[in-house]
Amino acid sequence: HYGQAETENQIGVATGLAYTTVGGDTLQIEVSLTPGKGKLQLTGKLGDVMKESAQTALSYVRSKSEDLNIDPEFFDKHDIHIHVPEGAVPKDGPSAGITMVTAITSAITKRPIRREVGMTGEVTLRGRVLPIGGLKEKTLGAHRAGLTTIILPKDNERDIDDIPDSVREQLSFKIVSNADEVLEIALDGGEI
Amino acid sequence: HYGQAETENQIGVATGLAYTTVGGDTLQIEVSLTPGKGKLQLTGKLGDVMKESAQTALSYVRSKSEDLNIDPEFFDKHDIHIHVPEGAVPKDGPSAGITMVTAITSAITKRPIRREVGMTGEVTLRGRVLPIGGLKEKTLGAHRAGLTTIILPKDNERDIDDIPDSVREQLSFKIVSNADEVLEIALDGGEI
Amino acid sequence: HYGQAETENQIGVATGLAYTTVGGDTLQIEVSLTPGKGKLQLTGKLGDVMKESAQTALSYVRSKSEDLNIDPEFFDKHDIHIHVPEGAVPKDGPSAGITMVTAITSAITKRPIRREVGMTGEVTLRGRVLPIGGLKEKTLGAHRAGLTTIILPKDNERDIDDIPDSVREQLSFKIVSNADEVLEIALDGGEI
Amino acid sequence: HYGQAETENQIGVATGLAYTTVGGDTLQIEVSLTPGKGKLQLTGKLGDVMKESAQTALSYVRSKSEDLNIDPEFFDKHDIHIHVPEGAVPKDGPSAGITMVTAITSAITKRPIRREVGMTGEVTLRGRVLPIGGLKEKTLGAHRAGLTTIILPKDNERDIDDIPDSVREQLSFKIVSNADEVLEIALDGGEI
Amino acid sequence: HYGQAETENQIGVATGLAYTTVGGDTLQIEVSLTPGKGKLQLTGKLGDVMKESAQTALSYVRSKSEDLNIDPEFFDKHDIHIHVPEGAVPKDGPSAGITMVTAITSAITKRPIRREVGMTGEVTLRGRVLPIGGLKEKTLGAHRAGLTTIILPKDNERDIDDIPDSVREQLSFKIVSNADEVLEIALDGGEI
Amino acid sequence: HYGQAETENQIGVATGLAYTTVGGDTLQIEVSLTPGKGKLQLTGKLGDVMKESAQTALSYVRSKSEDLNIDPEFFDKHDIHIHVPEGAVPKDGPSAGITMVTAITSAITKRPIRREVGMTGEVTLRGRVLPIGGLKEKTLGAHRAGLTTIILPKDNERDIDDIPDSVREQLSFKIVSNADEVLEIALDGGEI
Ligand SMILES: [Ca+2]
Ligand SMILES: [Ca+2]
Ligand SMILES: [Ca+2]
Ligand SMILES: [Ca+2]
Ligand SMILES: [Ca+2]
Ligand SMILES: [Ca+2]
Ligand SMILES: [Ca+2]
Ligand SMILES: [Ca+2]
Ligand SMILES: [Ca+2]
Ligand SMILES: [Ca+2]
Ligand SMILES: [Ca+2]
Ligand SMILES: [Ca+2]
Repeated sequence: HYGQAETENQIGVATGLAYTTVGGDTLQIEVSLTPGKGKLQLTGKLGDVMKESAQTALSYVRSKSEDLNIDPEFFDKHDIHIHVPEGAVPKDGPSAGITMVTAITSAITKRPIRREVGMTGEVTLRGRVLPIGGLKEKTLGAHRAGLTTIILPKDNERDIDDIPDSVREQLSFKIVSNADEVLEIALDGGEI
Repeated sequence: HYGQAETENQIGVATGLAYTTVGGDTLQIEVSLTPGKGKLQLTGKLGDVMKESAQTALSYVRSKSEDLNIDPEFFDKHDIHIHVPEGAVPKDGPSAGITMVTAITSAITKRPIRREVGMTGEVTLRGRVLPIGGLKEKTLGAHRAGLTTIILPKDNERDIDDIPDSVREQLSFKIVSNADEVLEIALDGGEI
Repeated sequence: HYGQAETENQIGVATGLAYTTVGGDTLQIEVSLTPGKGKLQLTGKLGDVMKESAQTALSYVRSKSEDLNIDPEFFDKHDIHIHVPEGAVPKDGPSAGITMVTAITSAITKRPIRREVGMTGEVTLRGRVLPIGGLKEKTLGAHRAGLTTIILPKDNERDIDDIPDSVREQLSFKIVSNADEVLEIALDGGEI
Repeated sequence: HYGQAETENQIGVATGLAYTTVGGDTLQIEVSLTPGKGKLQLTGKLGDVMKESAQTALSYVRSKSEDLNIDPEFFDKHDIHIHVPEGAVPKDGPSAGITMVTAITSAITKRPIRREVGMTGEVTLRGRVLPIGGLKEKTLGAHRAGLTTIILPKDNERDIDDIPDSVREQLSFKIVSNADEVLEIALDGGEI
Repeated sequence: HYGQAETENQIGVATGLAYTTVGGDTLQIEVSLTPGKGKLQLTGKLGDVMKESAQTALSYVRSKSEDLNIDPEFFDKHDIHIHVPEGAVPKDGPSAGITMVTAITSAITKRPIRREVGMTGEVTLRGRVLPIGGLKEKTLGAHRAGLTTIILPKDNERDIDDIPDSVREQLSFKIVSNADEVLEIALDGGEI
Repeated sequence: HYGQAETENQIGVATGLAYTTVGGDTLQIEVSLTPGKGKLQLTGKLGDVMKESAQTALSYVRSKSEDLNIDPEFFDKHDIHIHVPEGAVPKDGPSAGITMVTAITSAITKRPIRREVGMTGEVTLRGRVLPIGGLKEKTLGAHRAGLTTIILPKDNERDIDDIPDSVREQLSFKIVSNADEVLEIALDGGEI
């Protein structure tokens, strides 16, 4: 069933947390690479803020290419397509920033993403992770979808105690200040 | 009569299912290839969601080029024009995604599409097939047009029993989770 | 007098039929070619549907270049300008599709267009000719302008008997299903 | 005083006739050429119809380059800037078409334009001159500005007798059907 | 204090006169050149008419490059950035045309602009200087800012006697018909 | 906590002062460089005036490349991404001009920015620093964030005495007329 946690670790597909008028939900960031000239294509009825968030995420990964063992010429020789499924549903906001960093890095390095991990947080150009809204609802939606590890921004740590005990105790919370830490947690170490 | 099932299997023309205020209908996705530089042209009064759906379908086919025996350089050396006839009728939504995958693949590989097959389903960048609305009406429209095989998303399986018995018994339903399965069903195996 | 049938067969100028609030009229599709890089320029206050119709017509001609004895490299080495005169009058709709196919083909192959022929019909990417509205009014306008042969879509055949006898008997109607048939009828065989 | 007839024949500046809510006026079409890559720049607060008219005029001149002794490679190696002064006044409509043909041709061939000539008429891609509105008011404005020769479309010939006798008798009217005739009348034969 | 006359002659910065709802003011046109490909960048919250005025001014300078001892290849090998400070204040209209001609010419030729000179006038593509509105208010603003020489269009000469005697007697008025005369007056002869 | 003064001097991140309806705040200008072709990318929900301010800041730094020991070819061979975090918050106005100059210069020269410095001021193309609004509120916000040095425009000097004594005495104010002085103050001399 779409929206539920994956049954296997995936490459180039990261799970973010969304917050809608009818409660929390998950969303998936899919990244596809093709030989090309460095074009970034964004689809899935994304608003301007979310598009800028994707550009920022990509520039962050690019600036970290040496640390991530990515050939710096990779970006000029490939096009990157980022799609967020359920193409008729409008999506916006910066809170999928770290999810985009993770999906892009996974797609390029071919390191799979742990299937039990959901994440939320704005990312800045130098990798700072900024707080987001709706952590409680997002976490409940992640729990319903079968996720067990939640990555969240340091500045949202205080919001964890708003989550009902019954749910909170079934989840592992990972507090991050920088996108480096997100990749450390979300990416599976081994090659597949 | 336009809108009726083709009299022969066609290359580069797939039949989708539409759902309008006056009931279900079929629509055709036409794909034409010309030597070029990788440009994608979309015509037929398509809304933004449908345009993004076409881009997603194309990226999916591109990412599968090895499996589909497509020369990876094909895409840089050709322009692709996707047209949806009845050019004055506005069309939108993601549900022609798998129809676009099929028409693009047929046009490139020159494998004909089975003329009795209609299909509906959103496609994601990695080929997941997502549920659509209006299955009952779409199926009735497909039946009226003379189609006999309907490809639909796994998450819409439950909606089959809403279709009147008299129609349902004349149709063959193919349930899919991934675009690979769509191509398996819709493309005629032999070269023409 | 502009709008009347030409006094000689022309190259690159085809006559279509229009349907306005004040009755039927003719319109001319002019095509000019210059050495270039494959750009398509559209002028004459054309609406989006009519622009897409021109793009579809051009792709159709391109896909038929072998049959039409057109050097496939022609399209990359020329710019094509399509203009519809009376530049202040807004025009829209897909029904000039076959007129555009004819004018483009004439301009490239330098085959003249029979001056007594008017035509109306949407064209799809693979050359299917789809029905249009207002056949009666369009035919009356064509008759007033001095045209004697009317090309119309197969699916509009039933509308011929709505045309007053006095006019119908002075006209020759050519019923077509495919753009190939249009070119067969409208283009003068000989070089000029 | 700007708006009055020039005191000498000019290269690249042709005088058109305008028709505003407060009566007829003249307008000048200025054309400047620079080494470049074939870009067309249009300034002077021109509406879309007038911009398309300029594109049509340019394509016409281009298609006539052989007859006009213009090197066909000229257009790829130069940028063309067309400006209509009084930059804050909005201007629109197709009736400056033949004025644009004249100014462009003069700028490229360096043949001066007769300073006593004003002109009005839509031009099509193949040089047909189509009728315009407001001939009486335009002619009165041209007369006030000191012009003595008026070029007008064949289909407006009937409107000449609406012009008051006192003015009509001081003017020479040149009736044209094709842009070739306009150039014949407006361009001064000799090099300057 | 910004807005006051400069304390030294400047290169690439010319002073224009503005006319706002609260009276006359000065504005500065800053021009910066960088190695590039002939791009024109316009900033300072400029309206469309003012942007077109800048394009016209640039084309004029380009067409005069021989007279101004500018290498004709200069324009293809540099980008030109024109900025009008006080970036939050909307500005529009054609009356800074001659100021733009002056600032561009100064930036390219490195000839400084006389610091005591303010100017106003629309420029056409061939350098004609057209009249502007608000001369009285503009002149009062220029006087307050410490300017002592005012360049104005010939067709505004009649407006000089509307300026109060006390101010008029402290200013030197330069009447121009062509942009050549503006450069003659505004540019300092010597290299700095 | 995001928005507080950095704990270490940073490269490519400068702190500006913002003025919102709920009081003063800080904002950070992040600059990232990648090998490229001279493209400027701007993200962070920036209004048109702020985007133009960034373009102006970049052109200023470019024009000063010799003084700043920057290889003039640097700009053609790199893309520059400027991001202002808190991507969902709209930002506009020219007052981050000098902050952008500082962040760009730091990113290119790799000289760190003193972490205790906040700054506000419009910059013009030649580096003039123009006055801004809301100095009192901006300064209070900077103080709350832990900054101790405030760079402000000369024309705002008079506004310093509006700041409460208790805050004013804990801050060091640096008055500037030109962007050169800003870099002198904000950039840490040593390489890191
Ligand atoms: Ca969902
Ligand atoms: Ca709490
Ligand atoms: Ca239909
Ligand atoms: Ca059911
Ligand atoms: Ca007509
Ligand atoms: Ca009938
Ligand atoms: Ca006038
Ligand atoms: Ca009459
Ligand atoms: Ca001012
Ligand atoms: Ca007076
Ligand atoms: Ca803040
Ligand atoms: Ca004070």
